[in-house]
Amino acid sequence: MSGAYEELQPYLERIQAFQTAKVLFEWDNETLAPKEAGPNTSRVVGTLSGEYFSVITDPKVMELVKLCRKEELGQAEAAVVRELAEEIEKLERVPAKEYREFAELTSEGSRIWARARKEKDFELFAPTLKKLVEYTKKFASYRAKEGQKLYDVLLDDYEKGFDMETLDGFFGALKEQLVPFLKKVTDSGVMIRDDFLTGDYDEADQEAIGRFFAEYVGFDFHRGVMAVSAHPFTTNLHNKDVRITTSYNSHVDDSLFSVIHESGHAIYELGIPDELTQTLVGQGASMGMHESQSRFFENIIGRNQAFWEPVYHRLQEQFPRQLGHVTAEQFVRAVNKVEPSLIRTQADELTYSLHVLIRYEIEKMLIEENLEVEKLPEIWADKYEEYLGVRPEDVSEGVLQDIHWSQGAFGYFPSYALGSAFGAQLYRYMKGQMDFEGLLRKGDIKTIREFLRENIHRHGKLKTSRQMLLDVTGEDFNPQYYIDYLTDKYGKLYNL
Amino acid sequence: MSGAYEELQPYLERIQAFQTAKVLFEWDNETLAPKEAGPNTSRVVGTLSGEYFSVITDPKVMELVKLCRKEELGQAEAAVVRELAEEIEKLERVPAKEYREFAELTSEGSRIWARARKEKDFELFAPTLKKLVEYTKKFASYRAKEGQKLYDVLLDDYEKGFDMETLDGFFGALKEQLVPFLKKVTDSGVMIRDDFLTGDYDEADQEAIGRFFAEYVGFDFHRGVMAVSAHPFTTNLHNKDVRITTSYNSHVDDSLFSVIHESGHAIYELGIPDELTQTLVGQGASMGMHESQSRFFENIIGRNQAFWEPVYHRLQEQFPRQLGHVTAEQFVRAVNKVEPSLIRTQADELTYSLHVLIRYEIEKMLIEENLEVEKLPEIWADKYEEYLGVRPEDVSEGVLQDIHWSQGAFGYFPSYALGSAFGAQLYRYMKGQMDFEGLLRKGDIKTIREFLRENIHRHGKLKTSRQMLLDVTGEDFNPQYYIDYLTDKYGKLYNL
Repeated sequence: MSGAYEELQPYLERIQAFQTAKVLFEWDNETLAPKEAGPNTSRVVGTLSGEYFSVITDPKVMELVKLCRKEELGQAEAAVVRELAEEIEKLERVPAKEYREFAELTSEGSRIWARARKEKDFELFAPTLKKLVEYTKKFASYRAKEGQKLYDVLLDDYEKGFDMETLDGFFGALKEQLVPFLKKVTDSGVMIRDDFLTGDYDEADQEAIGRFFAEYVGFDFHRGVMAVSAHPFTTNLHNKDVRITTSYNSHVDDSLFSVIHESGHAIYELGIPDELTQTLVGQGASMGMHESQSRFFENIIGRNQAFWEPVYHRLQEQFPRQLGHVTAEQFVRAVNKVEPSLIRTQADELTYSLHVLIRYEIEKMLIEENLEVEKLPEIWADKYEEYLGVRPEDVSEGVLQDIHWSQGAFGYFPSYALGSAFGAQLYRYMKGQMDFEGLLRKGDIKTIREFLRENIHRHGKLKTSRQMLLDVTGEDFNPQYYIDYLTDKYGKLYNL
Repeated sequence: MSGAYEELQPYLERIQAFQTAKVLFEWDNETLAPKEAGPNTSRVVGTLSGEYFSVITDPKVMELVKLCRKEELGQAEAAVVRELAEEIEKLERVPAKEYREFAELTSEGSRIWARARKEKDFELFAPTLKKLVEYTKKFASYRAKEGQKLYDVLLDDYEKGFDMETLDGFFGALKEQLVPFLKKVTDSGVMIRDDFLTGDYDEADQEAIGRFFAEYVGFDFHRGVMAVSAHPFTTNLHNKDVRITTSYNSHVDDSLFSVIHESGHAIYELGIPDELTQTLVGQGASMGMHESQSRFFENIIGRNQAFWEPVYHRLQEQFPRQLGHVTAEQFVRAVNKVEPSLIRTQADELTYSLHVLIRYEIEKMLIEENLEVEKLPEIWADKYEEYLGVRPEDVSEGVLQDIHWSQGAFGYFPSYALGSAFGAQLYRYMKGQMDFEGLLRKGDIKTIREFLRENIHRHGKLKTSRQMLLDVTGEDFNPQYYIDYLTDKYGKLYNL
């Protein structure tokens, strides 16, 4: 270790500790904390964020980062310094007071959002959302390079190298090819039965089967926790403590596939090596790469006929009354049924990216076009009607369905669609390297998971998602694989 | 607010934030964290403790404290400065590195203890315990005033004004009067049936009834959480987030009365006023005063015939098969049955203080007489045989039964007995002010709880326990009330 890098260690330890504490408070807030705890706890979280901010913007830290950049560092060390330099650049222009206010606002925000969503009352959340947008724009303006658009600043936080120009192209291609394809699907006349997925699926049984499948795909309960929250998510304290949540309703597939999805995120974080965990590069490469893994597990593995062959009986045993008479093939067809709908997290694989497209367009309007927050419910509903032919009846199945904005995460949504596209590109490559479906049929998820660990997970944040994709598949990002994957899979299912 | 006191605010905020974060990590560690999370999480907790330490020992803070002491401050402000000055005095002599190591050790310690207890393997815990004792003694030696004994330094942390001399007197009185009384009880020939308390009491039903009784005595689930851990405890983030745990086994009274006990602790913390919460005086006055409240709820309220009259039917409804044929009177006699036993938390009210006496004597030996940790299991067993006539068969029902030492809490145990004595003195006074049993018979816990809130809880840590007792009852601490309470209650039960 170099002198300056060694001197940096205590600062990095503190950054890590404040960050981990904040993660635990967020987890606790979403899963367990009592209703009235909010304001007092926000004060604590605000102080911790302030401390994080103070370390990052400590002149001594900035000086050490400069010194480090002149020194010979190992790959991981250099990456840590690069991440820290970026974080400094992000924060140094934000006044400490504003940063702290924003942290308190996001802590309180998800609590208010949860209540507003439950009470189907957008007005309850609107003032908070307005403030969140204002802070977000203000912060982006502090950081914007000359001529850089504010939304591009935000997009860059989640996915480097994917700005509005690129994303307009990406979503344009999806829209151009998938919208007419979707039309063919809905006009095909093929009816897929899925009534058996809805019913009195006992919550405890759903939890039991969820735990089984989390473990089956590779979630390690010795290093992880599964709990309940309004909106499923994954978080981690480090590579020995990774946590997923789900929520239960009468649709058995909702919780089942959300568990497999979050397990994909979790397996990524569990695959971070000990050398990288608890450092600034000890996490997934990007939001998009993270989503590529979660959606890979959920869709490419989890909604695959081959996946269910060795293990469908286990689901039947848990729900003999509901699924005893349903074949594996019928079940797999049902969980792949295409049906334009209102809730993103419950959307089928094909229409999913249109949900993301709507959010992308609305975020652009919020950040770039001064769209008034009050108009959101209607614009949201209009866009759903236009793209998907469905219109939400209330805000809880409309604009309030996602937690992201309440946490100040604007620019995150596009990663969901990018992740699916990354996953499709990886899948295409992997099929050339291994008998993918054959492995699933043997119940061998491990070989697939190990490939992902070896090629993606173990690198943490050492490389960008784009570089990683290039290194693994030998090719730059190419969205056509995603479109081909979808049209191929759903073409077969709908006899097109 | 004075100038210096105002300048102190940001430091106090940080102290509070680090403290609250540590509380949440402890809670999480005991209730939920995955098995392998320990070492990485300990590193985080260690860093947070280090930060806490840095603020307390910051020369600027010490200077401000000195300035504050020269200024006119309100009662609460003066108390905060007093607490801070004491905390500084405690920590300034401890080297930062050692403080941090100790924090990591206690974080890891309770995890190792839990495993050792489960595996009934003292050797697993012994090296950690040894280190804990060494650190504790070393820290006490840094802080000891001239001629002050190390154990007195520790006792003072939990209960001001109760040193070994006082406690030798207190425990001496208990021993002198209660041991012969206990002999009379066990020789009385009165047999109390309690077989119905043990059986296949479903865990979910126990949880449901536990929640009912927590709420019945006044625990507020909008400001609190109940969970499961190896050893029941109460903790709080602030007065809007107070958390209790319990554990379930085949003895229905274990979890039932532990819930009422922890609810007593929780009600204390829920009664801290908004002006004091999240400050250094926003918590119970002392460990002993805390235990006085928990044991007041558990024993003086909860094991009172009058308490059960209006509400016993609720318990019968939850467990019709097990308790449908048992009368309220039979039930109350059973939960007051005297039976010398091995586990402190399951001990009856009469023998309880003998369990504490054993721990007091052993702690004195560990801290003052260099007792070797390796000898603990045997000494423990010998003392149980001598005082209670029972001998543990393994360490999990012997020396490993309590979590306290694993958390570095030496000097805490005496508070349990003191708390019972405080409670008896309060009870004696309250009976002169209100128809105590009449209120219980009407299901009116509120009047009793409000008395405690008004006279004890709302003062937080503004006064010492001893002062509070004097202010409420008009009399200094007098252990005779405790002895009278016990000999009166159990004299009646055993026809003496």
